[in-house]
Amino acid sequence: MGTDQVLFQLAAILLTARLFSEIATRFNAPAIIGEMTAGIVLGPTLLGWIAPNDVLKLLAEIGVILLLFEVGLETDTRRLIKSGSRSVVVAILGFVAPLLFGFVLSHHIFNLSILVSLFIGGTLTATSIGVTVRILSDLNRHQSKVGQIVLGAAVIDDILGVFLLAILYEFAVSGAVTIGNAGKIVFLVIAFLLLAPIAAKLLSPLIKRLHKKGSAPGGIAIVLLSLVLVLAALAHLIGAPELLGGFAAGIALSRRFFLPFGAAIKADPEFTDQIQTEIKPIVQIFSPIFFVMVGLSLDLSAIDWGSSFIWAFSLSLVFFAILGKLIAPFFIPEPMAARIAIGMAMVPRGEVGLIFAELGRSAGIFTNEVYAALVITIAYTTLLSPFWIKSFYRVHGHRLKEY
Amino acid sequence: MGTDQVLFQLAAILLTARLFSEIATRFNAPAIIGEMTAGIVLGPTLLGWIAPNDVLKLLAEIGVILLLFEVGLETDTRRLIKSGSRSVVVAILGFVAPLLFGFVLSHHIFNLSILVSLFIGGTLTATSIGVTVRILSDLNRHQSKVGQIVLGAAVIDDILGVFLLAILYEFAVSGAVTIGNAGKIVFLVIAFLLLAPIAAKLLSPLIKRLHKKGSAPGGIAIVLLSLVLVLAALAHLIGAPELLGGFAAGIALSRRFFLPFGAAIKADPEFTDQIQTEIKPIVQIFSPIFFVMVGLSLDLSAIDWGSSFIWAFSLSLVFFAILGKLIAPFFIPEPMAARIAIGMAMVPRGEVGLIFAELGRSAGIFTNEVYAALVITIAYTTLLSPFWIKSFYRVHGHRLKEY
Repeated sequence: MGTDQVLFQLAAILLTARLFSEIATRFNAPAIIGEMTAGIVLGPTLLGWIAPNDVLKLLAEIGVILLLFEVGLETDTRRLIKSGSRSVVVAILGFVAPLLFGFVLSHHIFNLSILVSLFIGGTLTATSIGVTVRILSDLNRHQSKVGQIVLGAAVIDDILGVFLLAILYEFAVSGAVTIGNAGKIVFLVIAFLLLAPIAAKLLSPLIKRLHKKGSAPGGIAIVLLSLVLVLAALAHLIGAPELLGGFAAGIALSRRFFLPFGAAIKADPEFTDQIQTEIKPIVQIFSPIFFVMVGLSLDLSAIDWGSSFIWAFSLSLVFFAILGKLIAPFFIPEPMAARIAIGMAMVPRGEVGLIFAELGRSAGIFTNEVYAALVITIAYTTLLSPFWIKSFYRVHGHRLKEY
Repeated sequence: MGTDQVLFQLAAILLTARLFSEIATRFNAPAIIGEMTAGIVLGPTLLGWIAPNDVLKLLAEIGVILLLFEVGLETDTRRLIKSGSRSVVVAILGFVAPLLFGFVLSHHIFNLSILVSLFIGGTLTATSIGVTVRILSDLNRHQSKVGQIVLGAAVIDDILGVFLLAILYEFAVSGAVTIGNAGKIVFLVIAFLLLAPIAAKLLSPLIKRLHKKGSAPGGIAIVLLSLVLVLAALAHLIGAPELLGGFAAGIALSRRFFLPFGAAIKADPEFTDQIQTEIKPIVQIFSPIFFVMVGLSLDLSAIDWGSSFIWAFSLSLVFFAILGKLIAPFFIPEPMAARIAIGMAMVPRGEVGLIFAELGRSAGIFTNEVYAALVITIAYTTLLSPFWIKSFYRVHGHRLKEY
């Protein structure tokens, strides 16, 4: 493909995302809906102008990594750890319930094989951390108590999803699971999440010093971007999602970084402010590319809308996909409104669900019909959740002031 | 290639470019030297860690397009047109002389064939607009009279280079040149350069309006970036270098945009300032990637440094490559110091020369030895010119205050 084509595509993505998000905002809908709609319009579903390619995928990947970096920057580690036990409950129950529901529905009611049913359950476990975070940011609720619980749970969910994917994939390929391999990934990811923020934090005085001495402008953005990219690549290398690298770098440089074993490394709020100012324009360019790519990846035109199996199966899946996430917060001690808000925020499956579904299809595990039903489920939970959450906060927001 | 690898490469490019440009600046050398050195260190010449790939090439391309956009933004069209006749003289003589010198040297002294000699002459004609512009910007001389003449000449040179490349390539492939095809490219490129700035200018009230109404931040950068990318893709589509699209968009939105047929469209200096503020962080991220790629593309380790032909040929080529550019300004009515400054600024061959050389090699026209001699010539003119120019301005800068 020629360079001119990629440049045109990039311009089309940026412009359409902007246009649709402006329209969405004017109709009181979340901006992210506009960006995903732009992808659906430009992609195979409607116009078919743009197919995801390597360059666009990388730019989208950088977009979501930087988005999580920004989220990490604004995260109060102490509060994140405080809300930790609640996040763990929400994440684990919100992981196990959809897995179980999906498996039972597929295997016992729709008579699909064990492997297929496990993969379907796996697809339902995912929470799209990118989509969830953007919805809460757009509502300016990402620093609330609810926001912190959801953020923590989404991160844990993402990690659990990776573990499950690794296990299921090994099972699909070799027919058996060795504890060794699965354990290795679990160990590496946990070690990464503990060590990466500390490493990033230890580097930050160096960045600051380099920045003060540096003669040319823009140095801080370049060094930060590099740090984020290296941590993301490391995360990917050990088998974790890349965006965890961005998140780890972000919390390390945040206003209130808290290390469990002591406050030896002080946070510097002024430096954090400067980081935010310098990195914001870059995030604003890259992150819409990610959400457009989510829309581009949803090929709604490939679905046989007349098939009764697809309708029956996808409607049941949607129901259990939502229920599976909504029940988890009922096991934590929060007011009802906060529980519902947390549950709703965990519903979008987005890109993580699509990765599961795509893997299942390309490995020959899913038939076209099963795949279509999963795409409908993902599209429904991803595209409609922002609306529900926004209207829920409009009506019940006053009850959630302290949450 | 995995995503993690590209992310690592990108981080390595950004960090090394930054590090080496800091070192270069401290030793009073131009920052761009540091960036190109970073490419030489990371590339096949020394470490061999990074080979140019599609993603990096695209990011580098965006870098040079945005750099030219920034240059265009700061260009005073009226002055550019005023210095136009001088730029034309410098460009045409600085194009014809190296072509002639290169051809005569190769064909009559080194006994190479007519086609090979023509391609060698063609390689010597190029002026690296990216390198030239950065050197002058680093010296803060890009808005001087000398800077305007050089900028105009470099743009014209780039266009002439494209014409020559199109003609030579056709000649190489079919053994003959049809006036029709060559004329078509000439016509399209000239039409583009006349129409693109006007189109961009007509769009600017729309951008401004959208920006004022837009609720989300960062809109102006996204719309501008899209405009620049579209014009660059259009330029590429009609057969011109992409960076001309960036330049055309830049001059259209500059502080003093002047249309020959009337001042119907007013410039808006405040809007231009805002554009510069918003676009600068993005340029600072992307443009170093371009200069690192120039270094990455120079494989100095592939050269057989013991070959006497390579030494004799490349030294003669370097001599004529410099002479060919230095004599042109002697035909314009400027003081001696200004003439020398202009001539020196036209010497770097950079990426354009490499494109010629690479095309010659991949088409089987150049032997490895001829290719090596050309790479030495390009490396020498590109890597050492910034030093000469900087020292020249240090010694003779006071004579060039008004130039």
